[in-house]
Amino acid sequence: MNQENSLTSLPETALLLNNAKLAFPKFQAVPDGSKADFLDRIAFEIEALGEELLQITMQETNLPLARLTGERGRTTMQLRMFAQMLRDGHWVEATIDHAIADKTPPKPDIRKMLVGIGPVVVFGASNFPYAYSTAGGDTASALAAGCPVVVKAHPAHLKTSQLVADAILKAAEFCQMPAHVFQHTASDSFETGKALVQDTNTAAVGFTGSYSGGRALYDYAAARKNPIPVFSEMGSTNPVLLLPDTLSKNAANIAKQYAGSINLGVGQFCTNPGILLGISSQALNEFIDQLEAEMNAIAPATMLHKGILVAYENKATKALSHESVAQKTANTSAAINSQAIPILATVSGESFIQNPLLHEEVFGPYALVVQCKDLAELKTAWQAIAGQLTTTLMGTDQDFEQYSDLIELAPYLAGRVLFNGVPTGVEVCPSMVHGGPFPASTDGRFTAVGINAVKRWVRPVSFQNCPANLLPAALKDENPLGILRMVDGKYQL
Amino acid sequence: MNQENSLTSLPETALLLNNAKLAFPKFQAVPDGSKADFLDRIAFEIEALGEELLQITMQETNLPLARLTGERGRTTMQLRMFAQMLRDGHWVEATIDHAIADKTPPKPDIRKMLVGIGPVVVFGASNFPYAYSTAGGDTASALAAGCPVVVKAHPAHLKTSQLVADAILKAAEFCQMPAHVFQHTASDSFETGKALVQDTNTAAVGFTGSYSGGRALYDYAAARKNPIPVFSEMGSTNPVLLLPDTLSKNAANIAKQYAGSINLGVGQFCTNPGILLGISSQALNEFIDQLEAEMNAIAPATMLHKGILVAYENKATKALSHESVAQKTANTSAAINSQAIPILATVSGESFIQNPLLHEEVFGPYALVVQCKDLAELKTAWQAIAGQLTTTLMGTDQDFEQYSDLIELAPYLAGRVLFNGVPTGVEVCPSMVHGGPFPASTDGRFTAVGINAVKRWVRPVSFQNCPANLLPAALKDENPLGILRMVDGKYQL
Repeated sequence: MNQENSLTSLPETALLLNNAKLAFPKFQAVPDGSKADFLDRIAFEIEALGEELLQITMQETNLPLARLTGERGRTTMQLRMFAQMLRDGHWVEATIDHAIADKTPPKPDIRKMLVGIGPVVVFGASNFPYAYSTAGGDTASALAAGCPVVVKAHPAHLKTSQLVADAILKAAEFCQMPAHVFQHTASDSFETGKALVQDTNTAAVGFTGSYSGGRALYDYAAARKNPIPVFSEMGSTNPVLLLPDTLSKNAANIAKQYAGSINLGVGQFCTNPGILLGISSQALNEFIDQLEAEMNAIAPATMLHKGILVAYENKATKALSHESVAQKTANTSAAINSQAIPILATVSGESFIQNPLLHEEVFGPYALVVQCKDLAELKTAWQAIAGQLTTTLMGTDQDFEQYSDLIELAPYLAGRVLFNGVPTGVEVCPSMVHGGPFPASTDGRFTAVGINAVKRWVRPVSFQNCPANLLPAALKDENPLGILRMVDGKYQL
Repeated sequence: MNQENSLTSLPETALLLNNAKLAFPKFQAVPDGSKADFLDRIAFEIEALGEELLQITMQETNLPLARLTGERGRTTMQLRMFAQMLRDGHWVEATIDHAIADKTPPKPDIRKMLVGIGPVVVFGASNFPYAYSTAGGDTASALAAGCPVVVKAHPAHLKTSQLVADAILKAAEFCQMPAHVFQHTASDSFETGKALVQDTNTAAVGFTGSYSGGRALYDYAAARKNPIPVFSEMGSTNPVLLLPDTLSKNAANIAKQYAGSINLGVGQFCTNPGILLGISSQALNEFIDQLEAEMNAIAPATMLHKGILVAYENKATKALSHESVAQKTANTSAAINSQAIPILATVSGESFIQNPLLHEEVFGPYALVVQCKDLAELKTAWQAIAGQLTTTLMGTDQDFEQYSDLIELAPYLAGRVLFNGVPTGVEVCPSMVHGGPFPASTDGRFTAVGINAVKRWVRPVSFQNCPANLLPAALKDENPLGILRMVDGKYQL
């Protein structure tokens, strides 16, 4: 290798990924227990940043202290959850099939487990400066899989990202992890992001953000000489079905509940309910009036950054300018002190079905009520919406009995189906699915929340006739890790 | 909808996928036990075709009766394996997290399971007219997931494909499956394949075949407005490491073993060992001489069809024409009666590393021995080869102790790592991984063989606060299916 090709002359992204590539087999060789200690230590170091971190993030994101304190707690909880997953050890899906010498032809001994996929590039999210950014769910799950991580900080909270990155590096040093298991770039250029995805050493990508951003990264990855998986979580309108019987009985309560959900965190959640569908009736009109009153009473609020406010106003204006859409709450042009004003609008089922523009997410405190003429139109309108993170059915027992076909269809529209609740609030637990058919995510077969988020960064490997002394611990006959395994076709716990 | 848009005027592919879309929720609603009966019945109907099927396939593929009889057995076994998986019921990965009312905020009840992804398009494989074609592993696993299947027959064995398709349809009728759970097209145009992948109702694609074919389908799918997963299994060179101590002790035996594997089925297996790497030595020379003698003794044989023979000769000629490659066995131009002649060639490690052309698969009875000057070069040459279905380590205990770093690296190069064996022969069992990093497959996170092949066609769905009477059986508290579940973070069996 001549000097011109030496590493120091490489662009920053190539250097980062070359480092990550070299770190990968070393990190894979670290026992899961030590990886768990590392994840726990990251949580400890983030907590040790104390008030300073919270104050800086408040300045950078306009998010209130209580929200940030909660999100920090969720972030350290996630890190500890993956640490616990590693200590439990079941996650590798160990599978053993013993040899059968007298079969024709003889059956070899085969054993399988999951291993890390390689270096993972994570893009920080604007709306979750902790839980889906530098040490968030993507990073925690990738590190748990033994994949070195390269984080591209979100430009809206660079100082926060740097502080958290430093905490991770401190934890890596304390736990004597291999060099470069975690790296961080604060470059905010579009070209950097593109180069990170295109780098030949990148094995997978995690992204949370806009459709345009997530789709662009997916396209770069798919166009590579060696395509790689990209998990982009690109948001949703989270359609809600308001069924007749519950509307006739609970319109006011549901309006109150949804005013809260639509405006939670200034509507800046990917599970924000942006589309509510019902069958035209007196009860639906009362619901709309009540929701309008509730939303008019909510004070304008500051969004994460100016760019998000501008996008909110532009997207809302575009939707509202549609001739079939009736605005119920105050006009967007009345924006005060660069704050976002809650917007409620209505549209007929027919117009909604005919205008896919109205299906698009308006990221912010916006909701569109779709007034359908009958059940058939409600069903058509609901099914016309592309893949979703969530869909919610608001109904009484009588509704659910009467409209059972809607319940049967719901799982095919979204990653999570809710009954009589609000989609905001994503519980971090093994049964949570945060993902969904495109465009909610680029691969509905995975979740970004909960321990199964690790499955995005792993692949199975079989070992055939491997000498017993060379087998990984998870696959040794004596099951030294005490994990769930499928042995000769039967689960053993 | 006006007449011009009516279904009857749709192109064939759109009609097939529209049918499949309508069948999807109905098929999902069929209990797993009934789906299992359907799969069993397909196996029964294929067996009922008896000798007629075998004779026609022999004519179409030039494969011998014994091989076809074995492959038919594998195919019906696969169908019954997925039936058993459905009856066992564990496959849905049921996960339950109960509500915790006194948590802040209160934790809802969340339950998760796998559901089918939607209509799956399967492309028949030329080299497995039964096991990876019309009723092969892709079809069986997709039907097990409750996904309607549209098969595009491989043009090289249309009659076989039609007979098997008829058997599946007979089984579907016998088992009263919803209409269109299985459909078949014999169109052999390239445009049909493209249209099947691009159809908006297609949810996923399974393909086994060439790199160019698999990559093209992947690219069509990625360029869609709503990208969909494509699992293309595109073959491999399945590199074999011949370690020094075993070569010095077992050169003749290994040569005999590998002559058999390289020429099994006229080399027409995706797990065919096409590249063998060793460190230059007297023992390696003896191995090459022995392998040359073995391969010269093997009679030329007829390949699946003329196109495959032409491709074999072209690819081999291209590799052999490289100035650094030395041919050991008879010249390809001596092809007799359109039969394939086994080819053995050698190359230095240095030349191999510098010429990626030599890493490419030559589909047929071809092998290249890479003579490396030392361990470092062996390692570099091995790692220079892109993602593989398998890699094999031939060594004694002493070799494995001395070259332990090679054992550590092996899992990152391939989906299956073999010790002292041959990669041909893919055991169908839960621990088998048939897949690997690109270009072995388009997504190394999945396998095409074994029960986990079903994971390609499913996605997880959460049900939040679902009324108990509406929960799917797999998620009811009383566990009526008696399946493995994770409940409140702990596995229960």
